[in-house]
Amino acid sequence: MSDLDPEEFRRLGYAVVDWIAGYRAGVGDLPVRPAVEPGWVRAQLPDALPEAPRELGALLGELDRVVVPATTHWQHPGFFGYFPANASLHSVLGDLLSGGLGVQGMLWSTSPAATEVEQVLLDGLADALGLDPAFTWAGGGGGTIADSASSAALVALLAALHRTSGGAWRESGVDGTERVYVTAETHSSLAKAVRVAGLGARALRVVPPSRGSLAMSADALAEMLAADVAAGLRPVLVCATVGTTGTGAVDPVAAITAVTAPHGVWVHVDAAWAGVAALCPEHRDLLDGTRHVDSFCTDAHKWLLTAFDASLLWVRDAAALPAALSITPEYLRNSATDSGAVVDYRDWQVPLGRRFRALKLWAVIHGFGLEGLRAHLRGHVALAAELESWIVAEPGFVLAVPRSLSLVCFRLQAGDDATRALSERVNATGSALLTHTVVDGRYVVRVAIGSVATEREHVVALWDQLRGEALRG
Amino acid sequence: MSDLDPEEFRRLGYAVVDWIAGYRAGVGDLPVRPAVEPGWVRAQLPDALPEAPRELGALLGELDRVVVPATTHWQHPGFFGYFPANASLHSVLGDLLSGGLGVQGMLWSTSPAATEVEQVLLDGLADALGLDPAFTWAGGGGGTIADSASSAALVALLAALHRTSGGAWRESGVDGTERVYVTAETHSSLAKAVRVAGLGARALRVVPPSRGSLAMSADALAEMLAADVAAGLRPVLVCATVGTTGTGAVDPVAAITAVTAPHGVWVHVDAAWAGVAALCPEHRDLLDGTRHVDSFCTDAHKWLLTAFDASLLWVRDAAALPAALSITPEYLRNSATDSGAVVDYRDWQVPLGRRFRALKLWAVIHGFGLEGLRAHLRGHVALAAELESWIVAEPGFVLAVPRSLSLVCFRLQAGDDATRALSERVNATGSALLTHTVVDGRYVVRVAIGSVATEREHVVALWDQLRGEALRG
Repeated sequence: MSDLDPEEFRRLGYAVVDWIAGYRAGVGDLPVRPAVEPGWVRAQLPDALPEAPRELGALLGELDRVVVPATTHWQHPGFFGYFPANASLHSVLGDLLSGGLGVQGMLWSTSPAATEVEQVLLDGLADALGLDPAFTWAGGGGGTIADSASSAALVALLAALHRTSGGAWRESGVDGTERVYVTAETHSSLAKAVRVAGLGARALRVVPPSRGSLAMSADALAEMLAADVAAGLRPVLVCATVGTTGTGAVDPVAAITAVTAPHGVWVHVDAAWAGVAALCPEHRDLLDGTRHVDSFCTDAHKWLLTAFDASLLWVRDAAALPAALSITPEYLRNSATDSGAVVDYRDWQVPLGRRFRALKLWAVIHGFGLEGLRAHLRGHVALAAELESWIVAEPGFVLAVPRSLSLVCFRLQAGDDATRALSERVNATGSALLTHTVVDGRYVVRVAIGSVATEREHVVALWDQLRGEALRG
Repeated sequence: MSDLDPEEFRRLGYAVVDWIAGYRAGVGDLPVRPAVEPGWVRAQLPDALPEAPRELGALLGELDRVVVPATTHWQHPGFFGYFPANASLHSVLGDLLSGGLGVQGMLWSTSPAATEVEQVLLDGLADALGLDPAFTWAGGGGGTIADSASSAALVALLAALHRTSGGAWRESGVDGTERVYVTAETHSSLAKAVRVAGLGARALRVVPPSRGSLAMSADALAEMLAADVAAGLRPVLVCATVGTTGTGAVDPVAAITAVTAPHGVWVHVDAAWAGVAALCPEHRDLLDGTRHVDSFCTDAHKWLLTAFDASLLWVRDAAALPAALSITPEYLRNSATDSGAVVDYRDWQVPLGRRFRALKLWAVIHGFGLEGLRAHLRGHVALAAELESWIVAEPGFVLAVPRSLSLVCFRLQAGDDATRALSERVNATGSALLTHTVVDGRYVVRVAIGSVATEREHVVALWDQLRGEALRG
């Protein structure tokens, strides 16, 4: 039983490309969210796996019959939920090339190109974003592509545990005195990282916001740090968020690093969604204060057109992650690693193996150019600004917090039940998908503009629908 | 700046398919391992990212110019290193479909199809492998696709920490009394998981092997468990390996579970490479004893034709991983999750987001059928048996350990320097790639047969070369 020969692969590959072209061309006509009940998909599929090989065409038929009707269509122009996961077709082709090459880039020696292309792209993006040169490989730091901002936060925490323990952590583990500082708006992945790292929820310090905002109070942080140190506890990491998931709030990074400096605590910036906007000079202020942080993360797979997974993580000290994470059994030893002249990206992550993720990012940068990426980001910000202006002008609608880039959060004056019902009615139509958060105890609808297919007409249609449904409600 | 329209995508998609067809057709003529120096790739590429968009053809040109000459070709028929990462073209097409759909399956509600197709496939594979029905969703357990066996081991450990602490771990973290049991041959990812989980290397107990083998001694394990419990320590997890990375040794799973039962310790089976062979009835004995373990992992991305990443993890208790890992902020709440009727796979892993990995696995099962998968596995085992017989018959060559499935380990009678030199000379020719391990202090060459393109002629050629080089050495 052998694999497809080149001619079969060509024929079937074209068929898959055609299927995707058709799917993307028609996705806007599908309901964003499927109306299936739990178990429907399972009930459509046979329990037993096939004994004999089958034609690829039959699989495409199953996708049409079972998968498409039961999929939430993240690439739909009416997808305004969560944050976008925009998977541009350029990135899809780059990822296809990665699959075709089929390399496993755990070590430099198992794929020099996968390692060094990633280094070059991360250096180039650091420059394009305006990150401090200290985060580039030439500057003593370096960047990597993690699978997610969750994993990036975890490895930052592990490096922080190693550093703040003076290296004892690798042998002795955690000791219960470690403390990690977040806000109530920090992404749940930080609480998860704290749990995974064995610190337990008790290690998590929730710093209150500045008055009238959802951003961390640096003064309150300073007090908590001082009190914890006085109590014999060990501050390990502060997570500053640039663009929170709920509302896009931005923690005051410069003020935070001023406060943390005396304590040697690791400062991680989670700019998973918003950070990529710094490609535009008018949003470069998002990076204010990052010059003194230890790590900075932003996702190419949310708003930067790159198919999941591609989270960009930079650290100021290129030795920090390998120091915390490296373990070298005999079967991974090789002369390139022994020489110290190369980067082995396995030491920058929890898994050993890794895909050639840089190819999809390269395809995006190549296909759009920096100017295309900026135009993509600016388009969504402009649409969000329009939507914001309509909400502000509309009786009965309340802008819940100031717009953050392309994220608009609103509620109805009529109260939580009305707001929730409005969101549910719009979602039920299938023409848009909205998700929610809670701000000051109130149910708030989030409109996250950013799908690769979203144009002005889709935002206008959403607004017409919101206004119409609100009137009917 | 918009994305490719369907017609452009079709044209460029065909071009990428053609490029891959050409690459795979010619990969056997390339040196398996590139002869590049560290920094060569970086020096070929401009520092600054392009401002303007570029034609995809230019990117393909860069791949030919920079990437292909600097890549270790894992899909080369002469790739015998590490374990295979065979990325069949069927799986590449399945992964392409996943990119085209571009869904993010963190929750059931963010893609019912991604979740349920994964459930169906893992149930079907559990059955086809002969895993105990307790590991299926219907049986109260369940399977998931993790990115790697490393991550699977980590989440198993986290679930074990939660369970053995009576639930205190989520709040209080680890307490320094936890112990984890492995052997010297256990994959380094277990030591890494122990480190990541905050236990420190001191928590790692290395159980000695049975006399004359590289497999864990269940008797020694029993003694260590009893001694640790008596000393007030808490045994958390035992990792039994079915097919170690170095030599393919198999720990005695049934004897291990007999010993661990009284202690309530979690038993994880790492069958990353070898487990998939249980698809063949003649290798079903690999699963002996797994009936009583808590979790079982085998990689579809090593030997089962599925492009990295696709590690299959089953647990006996479907509630175990969510109990350890779940955290639900407001913006992830949804009615399907609240109903308890669905599986949210984000609670089965560290990252929040996840790709629709099941599609590439589905494409493999669909395209090869179970009979094709078995033929693929059997072909490599038969080739390894031939190679083993040649080695045994050849003066000067020593079979280092008994062959394990498709993994053959040998050394030269002339000593370590000669063995190492032989391996390096073969690797330098570019026609094959071999890696090594150390057994009983001796340098041993591993021949891991399993590349999707490897046929008998390639193993014959390798043997001719090994014998020829050994004579010349």
